[in-house]
Amino acid sequence: MFDMTIQLQTGSGKRLYEQIYEHIKNEIREGKLLDGERLPSTRSLAEYLQISRSTVDVAYEQLLSEGYIESRPYKGYFVCKIEDLLELGERLTSGSADDVGGAAASDSKTLTSHGVATEQRGQVADTEDDIIFHPNGMDMSHFPFGTWQRITRNVLSYDNRQMFKLGEAQGDLELRTTISRYLHISRGVQCSPEQIIVGAGNDYLLMLLEKILGRHIPVAMEYLSYKRAYRIFQSFAYPVTLIGMDEQGMKVDELATSKAQLAYVMPAHQYPTGIVMPIGRRMELLKWASGSDGRYIIEDDYDSEFRYKGKPIPSLQASDKKGKVIYIGTFSKAIAPAIRVSYMVLPKELLQVYREKCWFYSSTVSRIDQRILNEFISGGYFERYLNKARKLYKEKHELLLEALKPFAGSFRISGEHAGLHLLLTAVDGKTEAQLISAAHQQGVKAFGLSEALIEEGEHRPENTSKKETMICDSHTVLLGYGGLNKEQILDGIERLKKAWL
Amino acid sequence: MFDMTIQLQTGSGKRLYEQIYEHIKNEIREGKLLDGERLPSTRSLAEYLQISRSTVDVAYEQLLSEGYIESRPYKGYFVCKIEDLLELGERLTSGSADDVGGAAASDSKTLTSHGVATEQRGQVADTEDDIIFHPNGMDMSHFPFGTWQRITRNVLSYDNRQMFKLGEAQGDLELRTTISRYLHISRGVQCSPEQIIVGAGNDYLLMLLEKILGRHIPVAMEYLSYKRAYRIFQSFAYPVTLIGMDEQGMKVDELATSKAQLAYVMPAHQYPTGIVMPIGRRMELLKWASGSDGRYIIEDDYDSEFRYKGKPIPSLQASDKKGKVIYIGTFSKAIAPAIRVSYMVLPKELLQVYREKCWFYSSTVSRIDQRILNEFISGGYFERYLNKARKLYKEKHELLLEALKPFAGSFRISGEHAGLHLLLTAVDGKTEAQLISAAHQQGVKAFGLSEALIEEGEHRPENTSKKETMICDSHTVLLGYGGLNKEQILDGIERLKKAWL
Repeated sequence: MFDMTIQLQTGSGKRLYEQIYEHIKNEIREGKLLDGERLPSTRSLAEYLQISRSTVDVAYEQLLSEGYIESRPYKGYFVCKIEDLLELGERLTSGSADDVGGAAASDSKTLTSHGVATEQRGQVADTEDDIIFHPNGMDMSHFPFGTWQRITRNVLSYDNRQMFKLGEAQGDLELRTTISRYLHISRGVQCSPEQIIVGAGNDYLLMLLEKILGRHIPVAMEYLSYKRAYRIFQSFAYPVTLIGMDEQGMKVDELATSKAQLAYVMPAHQYPTGIVMPIGRRMELLKWASGSDGRYIIEDDYDSEFRYKGKPIPSLQASDKKGKVIYIGTFSKAIAPAIRVSYMVLPKELLQVYREKCWFYSSTVSRIDQRILNEFISGGYFERYLNKARKLYKEKHELLLEALKPFAGSFRISGEHAGLHLLLTAVDGKTEAQLISAAHQQGVKAFGLSEALIEEGEHRPENTSKKETMICDSHTVLLGYGGLNKEQILDGIERLKKAWL
Repeated sequence: MFDMTIQLQTGSGKRLYEQIYEHIKNEIREGKLLDGERLPSTRSLAEYLQISRSTVDVAYEQLLSEGYIESRPYKGYFVCKIEDLLELGERLTSGSADDVGGAAASDSKTLTSHGVATEQRGQVADTEDDIIFHPNGMDMSHFPFGTWQRITRNVLSYDNRQMFKLGEAQGDLELRTTISRYLHISRGVQCSPEQIIVGAGNDYLLMLLEKILGRHIPVAMEYLSYKRAYRIFQSFAYPVTLIGMDEQGMKVDELATSKAQLAYVMPAHQYPTGIVMPIGRRMELLKWASGSDGRYIIEDDYDSEFRYKGKPIPSLQASDKKGKVIYIGTFSKAIAPAIRVSYMVLPKELLQVYREKCWFYSSTVSRIDQRILNEFISGGYFERYLNKARKLYKEKHELLLEALKPFAGSFRISGEHAGLHLLLTAVDGKTEAQLISAAHQQGVKAFGLSEALIEEGEHRPENTSKKETMICDSHTVLLGYGGLNKEQILDGIERLKKAWL
């Protein structure tokens, strides 16, 4: 039964919406609110607490996006069924309860991936006037080049002889300490610096992971996923099983019937669908991993720093009490693609294996670069830059949503809470190919969702649900706005009106 | 029959010794001088040509070290039997005929390897006063830190936004072009920039090579070799066959009876023995590789830039007409261990495989670092630095040889023409362990040859020849002098006198 007497404290340093959010979350986690129980409406709770309704709205939004509650049209909000919720224990608490106050989140990757791959294959051949809604576009106009330059100069002049020596295989302790702190604050990741391996890009870290995990590990991916990861697993000769998705992401029941030992997921913001995996599904996934000794989850936390509603959703690793999550992040998106620095957080069991079997692989990142990055983060420049970038992207995001209003009748918009792209699904039967071609006629490049479809449906699960069909029936295009300025966005949408409406 | 009428030209830009060297080499290659034929003595040739005897000496030394001729005690110099010499064709000519005028050679690696591995394992625990003759020691006292800093500054200020984007997977074309030119001039390597892959260290490039070559490739190494490479092949689950050595390096007849598809060698300066593989053995090796479709040779050209007698010996790749050599080099030794930039030259057949199977792996080196390195090489700073470093090492090398004269009765000295370490073999029966322990008592750390022994004799070939026994019977220590200054070298040798004489 819901107890509306929430003790709100002003001047506690925690915002009101957060106090409400945490109160309800704790009630659910402690079993005081049960599966299926109805929450008061936002209006009645606001009235009872004598606060503005929008404050309650924000708290409910956060609970919704983390999967603690669900909204049933015309009926209100209800507590979700959450498997093994008590397992969350103190780790999630400490992780998600931290007030990051809009602080930075972590990593990156889409940009360095699909987009470049496409370019390498020479498929991007548009004229200069074209407006390209590239899902991996980035805006570096606010990047503090001057600061980066100054730090570089300092690093090279201070004790530079030391800098030219080869550093530790896992990366310099200083940088690993900074990263572990940063991950704790921004993503709730629980790890010591010794669990971190710094490497030159995610691809390299996956190669190293292969050496740690061993050969022929069957791996599961969502059938719409990050294609480069799929190619990499293929080049490892890891047998890949494609798993169905619903609106919560990877279907764990399907995963459980597969032979996979390893599950590759992006819980904070699935690429390309933009799905945020709710807490219930996360728990299911962790439970699956605990079900057998050699099972692990790769959490690719590639763009969690760009989220526009509520506070950042904790990483899956934050909820992992049994050492089942291999967390991978990168600075290539949060800072710049040229910064070839990624990091992998190994569960302690795998750290042991790394130390026995892979200790001799030398570091792939120069100490100079490690030091520059360390200064950039620990000096507070990274956080400041991320805040600017987030603001910038949020403005573009809102501009785009506003401009897309005339499309509401003919398109369903999704994936709009985070990241740097939206999904538009035509509800009037237009196919992806038709949409792309019509856009092209108007000088706009849009990207088809099917580009992220792995193995072109070959391994596509038989029992594709309605929801899946909707996601994946080739009526959907991706509009990436990160790399475009506001004028280009408005111009592009004007052109798309001509093309699609 | 030897024709002494060599047409020497002064003012041709080529030194006299080189003209003699090339004349004789061409005579051998064109079959005018036959296997077993005797050359005139250096004195008689010098008299005939009216030049100083030392000039002829230098020319003969170079021919000796490249394996065109051999010296038989009290009998003189004779032309070697060289298998398939004509196959050398124009490629070797253009490679080795270039006058590099003391120009730089290429790469590096010992330092980043064994030494660090040892340190990581915590085995280097000596007091501060100890003199450590580390085989991987380096002297960076002449490194132009200021220049590096200035270039970095320029790179960051010039067109820097571009620099922060992700570059080509193989590395930026500009840098690859610079590397291909450099390799051609200094090492006779014949390749186009498109054959080059730039990567963050040799270990990474070997990982990538595994993806290109495929799984379970049986690989052959000398039984005294680079241990890190062995560990890497093991972590690939490549079955490793250890091959016997003689004074020319890997025994190709033994290789031929093995199942190996891949041979890992360091022809320019074998680690740890310091053996320079003569041309005859090189031809045998190339012939072996041509014997079957999937066979390749990995040429690890790790420290060829430090050679003290004659001119640099061309790479094995320079003699490879059939696309059988995978050439790997690095800037970690020639510049600094922290510079995580290595390069791999793929034969065209493997380049094709790379493009089909591995094109999606993104570059592991930041574009900023690539640009800095490119400026450093193409601006001539690299060559200048290498010349200084070579001079410095040569001085230390000569100082050490001089200081070691009192050891002549009790020790055999070898590996003294190149690299940054010597080998001392006790001829009075002292074992490696005794030598190391006695040195330790005097505050000197020497390194045992057996540390480079792979699999501690387990796979050691049955038919160990006398020569091999001499190399490998644990009476040999390595003295690395690269990282010591002159006072330390002299002090160290004084201490070793007390310990060993």
